[in-house]
Amino acid sequence: MNNSRPIDVLEKARGKKVIVRLKNGSDITGALQAFDLHLNIWLEGAEESRNGTSTKLGSVLVRGDTIILISPE
Amino acid sequence: MNNSRPIDVLEKARGKKVIVRLKNGSDITGALQAFDLHLNIWLEGAEESRNGTSTKLGSVLVRGDTIILISPE
Amino acid sequence: MNNSRPIDVLEKARGKKVIVRLKNGSDITGALQAFDLHLNIWLEGAEESRNGTSTKLGSVLVRGDTIILISPE
Amino acid sequence: MNNSRPIDVLEKARGKKVIVRLKNGSDITGALQAFDLHLNIWLEGAEESRNGTSTKLGSVLVRGDTIILISPE
Amino acid sequence: MNNSRPIDVLEKARGKKVIVRLKNGSDITGALQAFDLHLNIWLEGAEESRNGTSTKLGSVLVRGDTIILISPE
Amino acid sequence: MNNSRPIDVLEKARGKKVIVRLKNGSDITGALQAFDLHLNIWLEGAEESRNGTSTKLGSVLVRGDTIILISPE
Amino acid sequence: MNNSRPIDVLEKARGKKVIVRLKNGSDITGALQAFDLHLNIWLEGAEESRNGTSTKLGSVLVRGDTIILISPE
Repeated sequence: MNNSRPIDVLEKARGKKVIVRLKNGSDITGALQAFDLHLNIWLEGAEESRNGTSTKLGSVLVRGDTIILISPE
Repeated sequence: MNNSRPIDVLEKARGKKVIVRLKNGSDITGALQAFDLHLNIWLEGAEESRNGTSTKLGSVLVRGDTIILISPE
Repeated sequence: MNNSRPIDVLEKARGKKVIVRLKNGSDITGALQAFDLHLNIWLEGAEESRNGTSTKLGSVLVRGDTIILISPE
Repeated sequence: MNNSRPIDVLEKARGKKVIVRLKNGSDITGALQAFDLHLNIWLEGAEESRNGTSTKLGSVLVRGDTIILISPE
Repeated sequence: MNNSRPIDVLEKARGKKVIVRLKNGSDITGALQAFDLHLNIWLEGAEESRNGTSTKLGSVLVRGDTIILISPE
Repeated sequence: MNNSRPIDVLEKARGKKVIVRLKNGSDITGALQAFDLHLNIWLEGAEESRNGTSTKLGSVLVRGDTIILISPE
Repeated sequence: MNNSRPIDVLEKARGKKVIVRLKNGSDITGALQAFDLHLNIWLEGAEESRNGTSTKLGSVLVRGDTIILISPE
């Protein structure tokens, strides 16, 4: 366990649905296609929810520095 | 799929219309001409919408660190 | 003691429960699975509490630059 | 088109009038004299407008990290 | 004196009580166990006070970029 | 003109009066003594004005990352 | 004069009283013991004033990225 890295939790989530919480207060869900060390992520079938309102985004690139946390479902 | 990068979603969107959501709450749409690893982007035929108001921008360079997400239409 | 590093307090907390305070005002608790030098962390069995409301997150990757402090229980 | 860079839109605008939108909500217009990779820019004949009020600035160096976007007229 | 560094004030405070003022407005006190060049710090017997309320934290790692100042008692 | 850099506008202003607009909303005027690539600047005979109130500062070092723009008079 | 650096104004102020203005709106005064290129500074006999209230701090390390300006008295 001592050699595992935080980003390994994302390796296991490739192709699966994740929830992404942003600094601006919205949540984005989608299937995780790719990510890098800055936590830039590419989601497919993405949907944004904020203050109880949902918006479909489809393919989306989310900039890593706007992300608080990423949680696989 | 394991070798894909987040930015690949933009490679496929070159010359096509994208929606860019900014940290200040506005959305910019336009045809994606170029981008770099900082997510600085160059759009043509760009239009900004904020609080229900639209402004034509034409050619525009958007600084990457002001961007939350980029979504191809 | 002169050679100890701040991150050593996390080495001793691997696999144990920690409290993570975020810049947005919420607290996240969970078992510390992994961390890196940016303080990106991976928690298991995570739960977020904010303004008296609790949300289960399960596995979660928290971005280091959103963290104020990490305290082992 | 694949080799163009975002900053190329500025190369074409040298000596011409551009609009610069700042993070603090003001717009600055002026003739683009020089720029660098951080998007620091030097404008001549610059004028700032904010909340409907205009101020003449003349020569001005604008720090790149305060800029949201730059659009050639 | 010309060769002293700001961080030397912390070298002399190792093992002693310090007050740490955070950007979010709270103060944390505790015995300084370790620190690094980013001003990440590890405190023991830490206690947080904010708006007149105190919370015991025990061992804590405080991220350097959330710190305004550190003052040995 | 193609080889000029944004900072060249400051080279020409050495020893002369400049106006510096800060991110916190205040303006500082003074004679430009020195500057570096981060736009840290040293002013002499500096004066700060904010919300219509003026304060004499004399010699002052202004940190580059707090600056929006610098304009020679 | 062309070779002087902004930080030279601090070299001349070593051991003397300086005023430090912080991004959070408070001012700290004290005798400048040491500083580095990030503008981290070590003050002795420091005192913080905010909204008309003064607090004695004694020895203090102020993190450079919280500083707006430093002015020797």
